[in-house]
Amino acid sequence: MLISKIGEFGLIERFRKLIKLDASVIKGSGDDCAVIKFDRDNYLLLTCDMIVEGVDFTSRTDPILIGRKAVAISISDIAACGGTPRYLLASLAINRKTPVNYAERIMQGMLSLAKKYKINIVGGDLSRAEKVVLDVSMLGRVKKKDLVLRSGAKIGDIIFVTGTLGGSILGKHLKFTPRLKEAHFLVKNFSPSAMIDISDGLAQDLGHILKQSNIGARLYADLIPQSACAKNLADALYSGEDFELLFTLAPRQAKKLLAKNLAIFQPIGEIIDKKYGLRLVEKNDREITLAQEGFRHF
Amino acid sequence: MLISKIGEFGLIERFRKLIKLDASVIKGSGDDCAVIKFDRDNYLLLTCDMIVEGVDFTSRTDPILIGRKAVAISISDIAACGGTPRYLLASLAINRKTPVNYAERIMQGMLSLAKKYKINIVGGDLSRAEKVVLDVSMLGRVKKKDLVLRSGAKIGDIIFVTGTLGGSILGKHLKFTPRLKEAHFLVKNFSPSAMIDISDGLAQDLGHILKQSNIGARLYADLIPQSACAKNLADALYSGEDFELLFTLAPRQAKKLLAKNLAIFQPIGEIIDKKYGLRLVEKNDREITLAQEGFRHF
Repeated sequence: MLISKIGEFGLIERFRKLIKLDASVIKGSGDDCAVIKFDRDNYLLLTCDMIVEGVDFTSRTDPILIGRKAVAISISDIAACGGTPRYLLASLAINRKTPVNYAERIMQGMLSLAKKYKINIVGGDLSRAEKVVLDVSMLGRVKKKDLVLRSGAKIGDIIFVTGTLGGSILGKHLKFTPRLKEAHFLVKNFSPSAMIDISDGLAQDLGHILKQSNIGARLYADLIPQSACAKNLADALYSGEDFELLFTLAPRQAKKLLAKNLAIFQPIGEIIDKKYGLRLVEKNDREITLAQEGFRHF
Repeated sequence: MLISKIGEFGLIERFRKLIKLDASVIKGSGDDCAVIKFDRDNYLLLTCDMIVEGVDFTSRTDPILIGRKAVAISISDIAACGGTPRYLLASLAINRKTPVNYAERIMQGMLSLAKKYKINIVGGDLSRAEKVVLDVSMLGRVKKKDLVLRSGAKIGDIIFVTGTLGGSILGKHLKFTPRLKEAHFLVKNFSPSAMIDISDGLAQDLGHILKQSNIGARLYADLIPQSACAKNLADALYSGEDFELLFTLAPRQAKKLLAKNLAIFQPIGEIIDKKYGLRLVEKNDREITLAQEGFRHF
């Protein structure tokens, strides 16, 4: 049986079953970050993201944007857990016939975000490969009281997203600003019951919250904020690499957030019983079931 | 100018010049691990190692050994700093037409060492690529008093290695046991002034100690322990992937270690003034200068 048959999440599930963790691990694989005991008030957060030429960027992509993207994805993961990125390692595989300047521009892209977010680039590894592969692993910190996982959504909670969705492939995926500021605003002023960053499409990533919180969701087509580049609603629901935050708030908290009238946070639906799965109320008020799918590597 | 022209270390040097670190970083890029403040008695250690099909293993390598190797390399780095590995992340790029079993065997290889050394596999990332790329990043801990860097060797110190050198390409590079036990024995009972793991060949890795400790070294051909697979002395000096420990001890400590008669630790030379560079006393007592080189990716 080939990997393409069981898919990315099938393979991850098989891996996960084999892993044993000790009591210092609050949350292993299966959330935006791993969560590890640190001190009385804080946890450590660990995440990694690998980007590959021909999948996540092309041979003609400005290398500054390649470096930038790899770092931004990991920052987005740490933001989705309510934390602050602090250190990163970068492993780069590259062809020896590449101009030095190309490699330096990858580094410059990484540095631009590292500087902006006060992240220390503390090391890395260089290797040889035909096509560029860049893997960034990041260590961050989160106050225990600020930690948000995918698993806390409750029936009645309101579902929000930041920004707009869809069409990221036209450019945003290389230039997005990770929603760290927004995540910090949320965890300081509210208590999101669940949060994830939308990397593989709204429907699929909401599906992760549904699965891990053991609930269902109803979205409203009218409320889903489509980006100017989105072709249609399906694009906003299923295409990947938006890197927006998707989170849930208890009704009273949702009211408080809505009262602030902040355009960046838009309500798109509500959490319902698990038995309904993922539902969409279309513009004509008809309610349909959505597939919890999106971008998959295999 | 191409990367192949300035080489792996030239490129790393260019990267390093661009990086700024804050006061929480004890040691950034340029040692076996990055060293970060943790608590009163301990530092955190961070390291990553990327292995690539066609460079570090072949398409016919048993995938269990691929997973095993990626984890063993990072453990070896943490050992070289005197620390203990605790958590790892693994990013894997793989072809979708690969059998599921192949990917599972990579995971099994990683798990075998994770279990043996009580390391938690807390997450990772999957991506698509024509050839297999596996990047492991590892988080460990070291008691402040146990930390060993490449930079502390002093004139008069005795240079030691563990095990035997050379010919690793014939098999050891895929099956080596990282010298964690030996490193712990050393830092608990002695105070190594400098330590590194030999990943790119004795001459090149000793060169890192020489550069960072600002000293020179004299090796004795007669004393260098050649593995049964080593073709000759040059193989033991220059070929990569031995993953043995190379360390220095002050003369009195060296005497104490030698008195224990432990075959695993062999003295191979002494630290001398920087102006002599790296010297080798040949079997005929003639002293020559050695190039501080070995395996390089570019």
